[in-house]
Amino acid sequence: MQKVYLMTPGPTPVPDDIRLAEAKPIIHHRTKEFVEIFERATEDLKSIFKTQNIVLTFLSSGTGAMEGAVVNMLSPGDKALCIMGGKFGERWGEICQAYGIEVIPLNVEWGDYARPEDVEKILDQHRDIKAVFTTLCETSTGTLFPIKEYGEIIRGRENTLLIVDAISGLGACDIRTDEWSVDICVSGSQKGLMLPPGLAFASVSGKAWKFAETSKCPKYYFDFKKQGKALEKKSPTAYTPGVSLVVALNKALSILKEEGIDNTLERHAKLARATREAVRLLGLTLFSKNPANAVTAINVPPGIDGGALKNTLDKKYGIKVAGGQAQLKGKIIRIAHLGYMGEFDVITAISALELSLKDLGYEVSLGKGVAKAMEILK
Amino acid sequence: MQKVYLMTPGPTPVPDDIRLAEAKPIIHHRTKEFVEIFERATEDLKSIFKTQNIVLTFLSSGTGAMEGAVVNMLSPGDKALCIMGGKFGERWGEICQAYGIEVIPLNVEWGDYARPEDVEKILDQHRDIKAVFTTLCETSTGTLFPIKEYGEIIRGRENTLLIVDAISGLGACDIRTDEWSVDICVSGSQKGLMLPPGLAFASVSGKAWKFAETSKCPKYYFDFKKQGKALEKKSPTAYTPGVSLVVALNKALSILKEEGIDNTLERHAKLARATREAVRLLGLTLFSKNPANAVTAINVPPGIDGGALKNTLDKKYGIKVAGGQAQLKGKIIRIAHLGYMGEFDVITAISALELSLKDLGYEVSLGKGVAKAMEILK
Repeated sequence: MQKVYLMTPGPTPVPDDIRLAEAKPIIHHRTKEFVEIFERATEDLKSIFKTQNIVLTFLSSGTGAMEGAVVNMLSPGDKALCIMGGKFGERWGEICQAYGIEVIPLNVEWGDYARPEDVEKILDQHRDIKAVFTTLCETSTGTLFPIKEYGEIIRGRENTLLIVDAISGLGACDIRTDEWSVDICVSGSQKGLMLPPGLAFASVSGKAWKFAETSKCPKYYFDFKKQGKALEKKSPTAYTPGVSLVVALNKALSILKEEGIDNTLERHAKLARATREAVRLLGLTLFSKNPANAVTAINVPPGIDGGALKNTLDKKYGIKVAGGQAQLKGKIIRIAHLGYMGEFDVITAISALELSLKDLGYEVSLGKGVAKAMEILK
Repeated sequence: MQKVYLMTPGPTPVPDDIRLAEAKPIIHHRTKEFVEIFERATEDLKSIFKTQNIVLTFLSSGTGAMEGAVVNMLSPGDKALCIMGGKFGERWGEICQAYGIEVIPLNVEWGDYARPEDVEKILDQHRDIKAVFTTLCETSTGTLFPIKEYGEIIRGRENTLLIVDAISGLGACDIRTDEWSVDICVSGSQKGLMLPPGLAFASVSGKAWKFAETSKCPKYYFDFKKQGKALEKKSPTAYTPGVSLVVALNKALSILKEEGIDNTLERHAKLARATREAVRLLGLTLFSKNPANAVTAINVPPGIDGGALKNTLDKKYGIKVAGGQAQLKGKIIRIAHLGYMGEFDVITAISALELSLKDLGYEVSLGKGVAKAMEILK
């Protein structure tokens, strides 16, 4: 028997009460009972997104709602600025290209974020950019992007939307959809919302709905207008919704409501700070230039094999962390403190990291990082 | 306390063991453990589809895989024959139109099915039709379409695919994907597979993969080629899969494997026959000219209010059935015997129908239909 700890940046652990809500006997979606559950969830999501905009719910992974944001706002030939500094920023570029959108790339080194002034410069050069696609927390590098600052630049531009992938960020990193003028904020269920994968969300601003009126990209399953109309008609979704996941979502939102979104964010900030400080004290370095509170990306120290480190954490200690993706494979490990996470999860993670590093020949004074984490968490 | 019986044609009741499998602690999808579960499910699905083709799994409702079938096979301007005799046949037409496919409609009256000779005639008239889209069981009318006969017509035509929506049909109505030359067979999780909504499936023939090579419709989330490649690389899906639903799917498939697909089909045939015969003996008539074994559509008798009948079944007896959709609203009720259903579910349904009809003033000799059902089920 080995006790297993899931510390990946999605899926994240699902609390028992949410799993049991998901396992309730299934109900039909065209019933008053389900419509009420769906509407309550739709309403409660607003406080997590910090918005008064409609939040649409799709039955898909988060990528589906990203595709929806592209195909409902733009037309083939339109110009879009895609901010890319990791795997998920690049996904915006891929989706745009798949639909014939002209991509103006703003590439930053992985681990870094795009400076607001560079965004502004490109927008001034290309006045016809219809949308800026970016990421709140770039999961592949553990980096936070300055959405607030991007919002200040884009706010006054009538013909440009700010579209943010907050899939791994929502609930861990602050996103103030309305205050920061985010036109579309996309998220998914299997991260800060503590659910299994399967629900994707998109909040849609009034400005964005106007873009939807003229968008000519083909669409069907991810049609925002159709979904919005279904919600108005209390239908509640255009196609069969993820009934069991929506019931579980309602439970998750009631848990988060009780904590209060700002307390949730503060909890994540504290867990992230403890992780970062402990890791630094062990002589390790962080990969990101602007670490997000959802996940900490740690450079594998010289002389240590990244695959072996991940493997030791997993096989010997039961700690499931993520490695690096694409060019970062073997070079970083990523420890999530995202969703259903408390202080002892950080202590568990840091102690397992110390033990694994020692196993692999890295010099560690056992308990040093743990003590630092405890100091911050207390 | 009122005991509730879900007898809608999707979602269908989810057996306890499957619900509990769905509620298991979540695991990460990029692990050997999940890849094995996913691959076993992918393999076991083949026997349900009666195919040797690859079966792709998407995280969406069945409509997502329908969209996938259109956008991966065709290009804007291509011609497609859409067989439409109900809400779901019409959905094929809607999806094709959304992607700029020229739709040649074959409209049949709701409740009827398209005659194979009419399909052949249209294919002979329009030699450039690239795909025929049809439905195994049209859920909105409870009608079975003759896929085998369509297959015989299309088989020899190198430039035409047969694409079947078997969402509500799979597991209740026989579909022999390979034997009947079905190029793409689409299904969903919340019907015969006894799962909550959230997984969509598409089997893809060798002939269909060739079409995928030249298809120019834009796509991203529902990209068949990308999904097929992920499966080859044991990735196992291009985007985050529905982890909890796939774990539950594995459980469902092991239950169905134990019964054996042909026994499953025989069980559904018997339940459907008992329902139909009992209903006829009560003096009621069936809506469909070729009733499917998944769901029985019953004409609401003259003088009885369809809404009141559905409501009485629901509120007074706890029996959730479906009413009519679109122009059939209030005119039919649909009782499903689909998925996790046995003989006493039919007896429950018929006895509740008798009681409800009597409540509403329809002359019934109580137990008459039930006795007939028992006779057939014994």
